[in-house]
Amino acid sequence: MQRMTFLYLSGVCAVLLAITSSAYAHQAVGENLQGSDSETISSAGAQPTVGKSPWGPDDELGRLNLMTDESRAAVLSRVAGGNMYDLAEEYFMGMPGWFPAGDPRYNFWMTHTPRGTIIADPMNVGQEMNEHVSYTGSAFSMYSHTGTHIDALNHFGLNGEIYNGFSAEEYQGDHGWTKTGAETIPPIVARGVLIDVAAYKGVAELSPGYRVERDDLVGALESQQLELAEGDVVLIRTGRMRRYDDTEAYLENPPGLGMDGARYLVESGAMIVGADNLSLEAFPSEVEGNYIPVHTYLLAQHGIPIMELVYLEDISKDKIYEFAFIGGSLRLRGADAAPMRPIALPLR
Amino acid sequence: MQRMTFLYLSGVCAVLLAITSSAYAHQAVGENLQGSDSETISSAGAQPTVGKSPWGPDDELGRLNLMTDESRAAVLSRVAGGNMYDLAEEYFMGMPGWFPAGDPRYNFWMTHTPRGTIIADPMNVGQEMNEHVSYTGSAFSMYSHTGTHIDALNHFGLNGEIYNGFSAEEYQGDHGWTKTGAETIPPIVARGVLIDVAAYKGVAELSPGYRVERDDLVGALESQQLELAEGDVVLIRTGRMRRYDDTEAYLENPPGLGMDGARYLVESGAMIVGADNLSLEAFPSEVEGNYIPVHTYLLAQHGIPIMELVYLEDISKDKIYEFAFIGGSLRLRGADAAPMRPIALPLR
Amino acid sequence: MQRMTFLYLSGVCAVLLAITSSAYAHQAVGENLQGSDSETISSAGAQPTVGKSPWGPDDELGRLNLMTDESRAAVLSRVAGGNMYDLAEEYFMGMPGWFPAGDPRYNFWMTHTPRGTIIADPMNVGQEMNEHVSYTGSAFSMYSHTGTHIDALNHFGLNGEIYNGFSAEEYQGDHGWTKTGAETIPPIVARGVLIDVAAYKGVAELSPGYRVERDDLVGALESQQLELAEGDVVLIRTGRMRRYDDTEAYLENPPGLGMDGARYLVESGAMIVGADNLSLEAFPSEVEGNYIPVHTYLLAQHGIPIMELVYLEDISKDKIYEFAFIGGSLRLRGADAAPMRPIALPLR
Amino acid sequence: MQRMTFLYLSGVCAVLLAITSSAYAHQAVGENLQGSDSETISSAGAQPTVGKSPWGPDDELGRLNLMTDESRAAVLSRVAGGNMYDLAEEYFMGMPGWFPAGDPRYNFWMTHTPRGTIIADPMNVGQEMNEHVSYTGSAFSMYSHTGTHIDALNHFGLNGEIYNGFSAEEYQGDHGWTKTGAETIPPIVARGVLIDVAAYKGVAELSPGYRVERDDLVGALESQQLELAEGDVVLIRTGRMRRYDDTEAYLENPPGLGMDGARYLVESGAMIVGADNLSLEAFPSEVEGNYIPVHTYLLAQHGIPIMELVYLEDISKDKIYEFAFIGGSLRLRGADAAPMRPIALPLR
Repeated sequence: MQRMTFLYLSGVCAVLLAITSSAYAHQAVGENLQGSDSETISSAGAQPTVGKSPWGPDDELGRLNLMTDESRAAVLSRVAGGNMYDLAEEYFMGMPGWFPAGDPRYNFWMTHTPRGTIIADPMNVGQEMNEHVSYTGSAFSMYSHTGTHIDALNHFGLNGEIYNGFSAEEYQGDHGWTKTGAETIPPIVARGVLIDVAAYKGVAELSPGYRVERDDLVGALESQQLELAEGDVVLIRTGRMRRYDDTEAYLENPPGLGMDGARYLVESGAMIVGADNLSLEAFPSEVEGNYIPVHTYLLAQHGIPIMELVYLEDISKDKIYEFAFIGGSLRLRGADAAPMRPIALPLR
Repeated sequence: MQRMTFLYLSGVCAVLLAITSSAYAHQAVGENLQGSDSETISSAGAQPTVGKSPWGPDDELGRLNLMTDESRAAVLSRVAGGNMYDLAEEYFMGMPGWFPAGDPRYNFWMTHTPRGTIIADPMNVGQEMNEHVSYTGSAFSMYSHTGTHIDALNHFGLNGEIYNGFSAEEYQGDHGWTKTGAETIPPIVARGVLIDVAAYKGVAELSPGYRVERDDLVGALESQQLELAEGDVVLIRTGRMRRYDDTEAYLENPPGLGMDGARYLVESGAMIVGADNLSLEAFPSEVEGNYIPVHTYLLAQHGIPIMELVYLEDISKDKIYEFAFIGGSLRLRGADAAPMRPIALPLR
Repeated sequence: MQRMTFLYLSGVCAVLLAITSSAYAHQAVGENLQGSDSETISSAGAQPTVGKSPWGPDDELGRLNLMTDESRAAVLSRVAGGNMYDLAEEYFMGMPGWFPAGDPRYNFWMTHTPRGTIIADPMNVGQEMNEHVSYTGSAFSMYSHTGTHIDALNHFGLNGEIYNGFSAEEYQGDHGWTKTGAETIPPIVARGVLIDVAAYKGVAELSPGYRVERDDLVGALESQQLELAEGDVVLIRTGRMRRYDDTEAYLENPPGLGMDGARYLVESGAMIVGADNLSLEAFPSEVEGNYIPVHTYLLAQHGIPIMELVYLEDISKDKIYEFAFIGGSLRLRGADAAPMRPIALPLR
Repeated sequence: MQRMTFLYLSGVCAVLLAITSSAYAHQAVGENLQGSDSETISSAGAQPTVGKSPWGPDDELGRLNLMTDESRAAVLSRVAGGNMYDLAEEYFMGMPGWFPAGDPRYNFWMTHTPRGTIIADPMNVGQEMNEHVSYTGSAFSMYSHTGTHIDALNHFGLNGEIYNGFSAEEYQGDHGWTKTGAETIPPIVARGVLIDVAAYKGVAELSPGYRVERDDLVGALESQQLELAEGDVVLIRTGRMRRYDDTEAYLENPPGLGMDGARYLVESGAMIVGADNLSLEAFPSEVEGNYIPVHTYLLAQHGIPIMELVYLEDISKDKIYEFAFIGGSLRLRGADAAPMRPIALPLR
């Protein structure tokens, strides 16, 4: 019911029709019928390749094309009031992050302080003025995938190409990708759906390494009495976020999405897939020859951006399973990800 | 009329009453009556000091307290549809920024590339896997006041203290301020008002160094047939943003807000004051002994966060003078500012 | 014998005489006579304070004043030939460093690459030129105490002051200290002495947490048939460096210098004290109320720079116990340390 | 005369013989005979390619192979006394650097301060201990070619390869080059020769954009009564360093080495070529199709590392034209350059 209303309001029907006559739809249909790893990921003798966009050879947005004036109007018209949930976590020295590949940890430092400017005098205004005007400045650095963030489609590709066939050789330089960079990601206003798998399983947090699969998602949605719809921002709660303040504990073998669960979300029309853990998916990989198959499947094969480190504790507690998801990621030119501080507004 | 409706809906009356019996209100009243620099900024023999919050000695939010469930509901209920405006600009190597005080310029670099991982093998997965799984990662660093952003109240204080009397000695350490840090700034959902001074003056851009004063603001609002209301996010358009892609031109002697204009906005109840230029205010300072008086006036004396580098070109072109302003700044613990990518949703 | 010759040649006698009538000598004598922690470090009711320089109230060099044309000539005239030992280790992603206090880890990244410039074209010269001229650039960042380095005297002080009484309030600003910054450290050309405690103890590496004390130093020197002399660069080998390529192992509870050993070196006239471990001294601290007493004792009380992460494996293997130590640290203005790549040239 | 003595002492004859039967010697001879750009740089229809090392296909050192125990002994045995000259400049916020290609400027920041640790308490030791133990820490970041430094051979190549035929495709990854990285550069102990072109021309500084050619070098050497020898570190003084403290003036159209001058130094056996300006060579390029031909000629065709921003003012003033050059660059793994603080010791 929810789904029908949404589709009607958002007017994505035309797009969906377009999809059915495309490679994208073919993949989806193939999965629906066969549901096997061997077809889409690692069939004998054939490695997967990147998906082609049903929105044309120049398309850099993938499923973000599902967001339109109509889809935004549909969800905004259902906002219930002024109650607001913050879906982002803090940035702080020592915070969790992706450390195994040597990326820089979050760093924050003062560049000007009320007392330090009296000595450094960076504005050349003299001691008296610095004692009166108390200047504080700071700077920070981070791996683009730090804190609550969204992955751009170029984050993971296959065989030297990213989604829609853009090759690193032609489009990736020392200042990033000239295709699908984070600056191309529009602000997101869409229906958000929380799939609270931890709550469905009756646990505070899924067990370490737990792999969320199709049955978990279907079961949780049924218990929440919700259906997914094309264009949804789907956020999966593992419960791991409650350990965010203990970096080591947060990072230790987190539960995450499995390939079977990812296929279900692709088939269900998800526009963005996110979770409250570090890397969305569970490790180690289920797929031989690919150490991060859920990422390549969503990003490179299906053009679906990923969100990570989303703060879902408050909406879980208040059982806000459906909401207006509103958030804009930083427009980092050429980047493969960007920080974001989205909110959830409950719907009528 | 707009104003009354808004006040009624947003239910800030109680807060406003509280204000009238407080130091904050006293300052505002004082200004209304006297309207002179000498009282609030540099009266003979008395330098200004930081303001005390009418929301109590522990308050770290200042006028952000004006935002409530009711105020959010009021503006969200008026959203006209799904049309959306992006109010943020891109981050890129060589972009504009605050350079005179030696702060780090925006820097973006690749940490992993599809071809570079084949040699570096950061995940220790071997050449074959790196040739198949095409990993792109990047990192960035910036002065906190880079790109579209919001200043926290601790950014500028007076005499070693920030708004509400928190002293650097007690609350500012090597990891930032333990009071009013950017992590305390909530996501903003509020009525936004564009004051398009450039359009009002009939120019593409205000002249270099032009100081926007009370008359400009009043005149532009009249021509836009709008009144300000308590709790507004007020965004002033100078037109300078059209030079954003030419860093040198963007930074050269920008037009900005003057003290007289700032006082008008304080009296009008603005919750946040922003503009499309680098530093909101016009330079050189009008106030002896203070090189950046509009900042200290808004931030330190009145608890009003500042936004800078807001992209207002599209809403100007479409004459969207009133809108739902929705945006969340990064929760950088202890910081004096944070990047933000807000949107504007036109209102009915 | 070595010592007498050195003193005669180096002409430090005048300085030593000066020292004997100064506070510095007083401290040394005090220690010689009493040899107790209670006097110099934590006597009942009295915490230690920073030392005053015998070279006058403006002095920023401390014992580096012992280096003169004469002292340099003395050691250079004894260089045995062209045999050279590298005393520095490599910088690489994931390398050891001081992590507990949140300082940035060594980071290295490419800014230009032969293939990446073809896309990014940072010089605006076009594809053809970029394909012909293969440009590689990189950048790095680090905590100043990373890799083989020297600590400036401002690195650790006592009670808000550093060596010779310079206070943070007057001399430490947002761009570092205006006194004793790393830019004031001259290139070092001096007699170097390896005290190979690990070899003396007959072990590859001192046991975890082992505290090197006076007896160890005296015993090792005797076995090496060497005496210390004023102005020496004294380098203590614990053997920990053999684990440098295994960051976790390198950092795990390293052996280091104890207070008793440090006092011996102060009394012996050491100009610089160094070691092959991360932080010179052994932890946890022996001194109540001071978590890093060897540092404050050498730097703040006696004006003796410290070197850390010095590569001593090759000179140990070849039993090069006495050598010309030659090295210049980066002239980082205001800094509390600087990287350095010194060499050892064996003496006749 | 100097030259014969040096050769005899340093025992590089065997190396020179080896060179005469190699591609390297062939190049040198070709230049001696023909001396034309067309042959070595841009003959009709043929672009230059990288040189092959006479020291074999695995060689990563190029002409640094000329440094041996014997060559070091030869120069060290001639050291005149203890007089020492510092050849390096300071690093400071706002310092000169290579800005046109967007590389990060030198940045230095405090990570711990005596007063700031009292609030931040990074060691978790509490207020009292932080008030007693006054901790100062800092960090810095830079483009590898900042301040006095040496370029590794991989800094500029030709057609995707660097000196000795190592290709970017095989050897350049996200963590730098696995061939000829800065970690492979040994500490340098060699005969240094100052060619004081500015003094020879009787000017404080060569005129902006002045191109130093063969005649300037030959003339200056004659006036200094010196000859170059194989294995020399040749340092050219333009006089531009006197503007180092005024970044804009230092960078404005500097004088530098021309191709004709570079060829002379290659033929003369220089092991390292350096200067006191930002980029060694004069711009704009003399060679069509190559925007930085002196770099590619020295680094990629002849395996000669380059030094830049060398401080030569003091040795110029004291007419120290010949000296022991001693300095070690930071061992930055994979890097294309590394900072260095060399010294000059006058020779007998």
